[in-house]
Amino acid sequence: MPKEALKVAIAGLGTVGGGTVKVLQNHADEIAARCGRPVVITAVAALSKEGLGFDISGYAWYDDAVAMAKDADADVFVELIGGSEGVARAAVEAALNAGRHVVTANKALIAHHGKALSRLAESKGVSLNYEAAVAGGIPVIKSIREALAGNTLKRVQGIMNGTCNYILTTMREEGLDFDKVLKDAQDLGYAEADPSFDIDGVDTAHKLAILTSVAFGVELNFKDVHVEGIRHISAVDIQFAEELGYRIKLLGVASRENGTLEQRVHPTMVPLDSPLAHVEGVFNAVVIDGDEVDTVMQVGRGAGERPTASAVVGDITDIARGISLPTFSVPADKLESVPTRDMNEHVGAYYVRLSLLDQPGVFADVAAALRDHQVSMESMIQRAREPGEPVPVVLTTHETTEANMRAALDAIAKLDSVTEKPRMIRIEG
Amino acid sequence: MPKEALKVAIAGLGTVGGGTVKVLQNHADEIAARCGRPVVITAVAALSKEGLGFDISGYAWYDDAVAMAKDADADVFVELIGGSEGVARAAVEAALNAGRHVVTANKALIAHHGKALSRLAESKGVSLNYEAAVAGGIPVIKSIREALAGNTLKRVQGIMNGTCNYILTTMREEGLDFDKVLKDAQDLGYAEADPSFDIDGVDTAHKLAILTSVAFGVELNFKDVHVEGIRHISAVDIQFAEELGYRIKLLGVASRENGTLEQRVHPTMVPLDSPLAHVEGVFNAVVIDGDEVDTVMQVGRGAGERPTASAVVGDITDIARGISLPTFSVPADKLESVPTRDMNEHVGAYYVRLSLLDQPGVFADVAAALRDHQVSMESMIQRAREPGEPVPVVLTTHETTEANMRAALDAIAKLDSVTEKPRMIRIEG
Repeated sequence: MPKEALKVAIAGLGTVGGGTVKVLQNHADEIAARCGRPVVITAVAALSKEGLGFDISGYAWYDDAVAMAKDADADVFVELIGGSEGVARAAVEAALNAGRHVVTANKALIAHHGKALSRLAESKGVSLNYEAAVAGGIPVIKSIREALAGNTLKRVQGIMNGTCNYILTTMREEGLDFDKVLKDAQDLGYAEADPSFDIDGVDTAHKLAILTSVAFGVELNFKDVHVEGIRHISAVDIQFAEELGYRIKLLGVASRENGTLEQRVHPTMVPLDSPLAHVEGVFNAVVIDGDEVDTVMQVGRGAGERPTASAVVGDITDIARGISLPTFSVPADKLESVPTRDMNEHVGAYYVRLSLLDQPGVFADVAAALRDHQVSMESMIQRAREPGEPVPVVLTTHETTEANMRAALDAIAKLDSVTEKPRMIRIEG
Repeated sequence: MPKEALKVAIAGLGTVGGGTVKVLQNHADEIAARCGRPVVITAVAALSKEGLGFDISGYAWYDDAVAMAKDADADVFVELIGGSEGVARAAVEAALNAGRHVVTANKALIAHHGKALSRLAESKGVSLNYEAAVAGGIPVIKSIREALAGNTLKRVQGIMNGTCNYILTTMREEGLDFDKVLKDAQDLGYAEADPSFDIDGVDTAHKLAILTSVAFGVELNFKDVHVEGIRHISAVDIQFAEELGYRIKLLGVASRENGTLEQRVHPTMVPLDSPLAHVEGVFNAVVIDGDEVDTVMQVGRGAGERPTASAVVGDITDIARGISLPTFSVPADKLESVPTRDMNEHVGAYYVRLSLLDQPGVFADVAAALRDHQVSMESMIQRAREPGEPVPVVLTTHETTEANMRAALDAIAKLDSVTEKPRMIRIEG
């Protein structure tokens, strides 16, 4: 006897919502064969029916997503509205309360309210799936939650914002500065009119907080993510990086060690011999380090209509197949509360770019400031010579603590021969 | 009420079997939390108890894996013996017949008998999981079978043999020839005493045949995989590849197009700007192209005790969580039988290395042979000059058919000025 169809209601018919409708429509036969039952859309909700570009005539129409979440004839409520509050949150809560499974691509919602929502889903015996919220089409949540269930994970890190990676890649390839490339990216539709959410690292931080919870079985803690964006990266930094054997990427990095958790988002010098360095343009990548599997890297499109819809549909087919798992790997009441390591305790190597007056003895003052704060220099480059004028000087350090590095930079910034605020980029791996 | 423990019997206590025992022992608490039930080993089978290095005193002992498959107090039978016939096959059949789930890392078994075994598993309502059989710790089967269920896949390709990738990487890094590096790899334990299974591409072909079936929903067809190994790759080829902007990798590539299937394993020139080119040493990688997700690449350790055990345990935790799927994405009777495209119809670009007598007019004969077979040259390099002596000459072609390329090479091989059999390497992407 064939199983009953899985009924799906989709809220939000923008880029990802439209993509999800199309993927479910275009792949209906394959999906039915793979799931052993049809997956059918029964209802859709959006602000307007105008200009959709696909056929929704067979579906119940709602202009109120919360009403659809409560009333629709659906097993699964798919939230593709966006935003951590407002309609998206209200609709997801209503759907869970009504005993429906929820699939969402909403990283802000999960990063801010994931724990409460996972409790609610558990209490109702339904799934809350969010593969599309992190790194788009890359199946990183499934990989962590299922495939690597035999591992204690040590670190997760990734390039999780395509806008930033596109900007950094284009700056390098074209030798252009940040502002120019951002403007071009906006014109091409790769960056939002208000790009701060992406370029200041908030989007990456949302995704990292989610990854951290599922990877380490800890409570979501978005507010303690250390976040720096890419606005201060210059074409000069990118050139020096290449010369030193690195490429600059905006990384989100989370690690669990000695009973503390580190979550940080910042521009990072990645060694050129690392595959991560070669993830370019709008592509995303996530690297997972487990105690058994060692390292697994996954690369793919982190955004866009179809790749994101692919992840949403993967979550739906899991439900169709009866796959139901705790939201963050373990039940919500087993998630640990782990203290955040102070960023000052971070240990790593650093790249520093100074603007120094080109005059005798000036570098001795810099070297002394480093020495006074126990920072050991690994290399120094001064290419330009312009006696009496400011020239860029770049140095890299051996491993030290963030506290020492910051103290050294504060001291260096106060030197008379230093003409601009020193720039620092962390080196990874 | 807590769920009952999942009981596991493990056959084969070599590298991967031992790793699986250790992973299940060391991660018992985490696995129980993640699965909502304990996963316990109840029985083990091997040829000898000697020198295991881990404690099996709590488990029922069998020196006959088939007897264990029939009689053990176990829900899951884990086959880590190896080989496509003999005990491994008999034990897996016995376990399935006894209504037990089966987890295996045995690519030869699945490549040769996967279809019959999947029918048997289905008829008994149990799972047959084999994530560890392809690319070790990389969760590629789960990604294809579950995460990408909303896609029609177009192509899967990968570096799936760590021995070959280690040899090719070391040849490049050290500038050494194949025989020397193979010998070193054997001394280091990275290559078997009889390395033919790896270096002649058979191991990759097993994995590719499995990937092909699960990716395209087609019947396994190992015998029609076109297989070439890496024995004929020379240090000179690797140097020229680098100069031309490529790196040589042993790839398995499968694609479904126009109602035919292409499955081929051969050394391939991969462009340096592709992330695949930077997967080095013993690492494996699989690239999946879907019509919705676009491209997803996964990189990780394709072999070794712990990474492979990680994949085996992932398959076991899936069973503990009640995840049960058709072996090759769709039920066995829905797998399509798709004709294999003749390799002569393959279309691609080619690298050709000739040994030519350095004398006037000799290259004109080569160019004429290419022209006569509709092969269009893209570049030519002749570095050395030794009038009257053989020198290496390398050329690359634009896209052409394999049939044309082979006919051109046959004609070239017959020229008096050609002193060795021409070498050909396909260029991808």
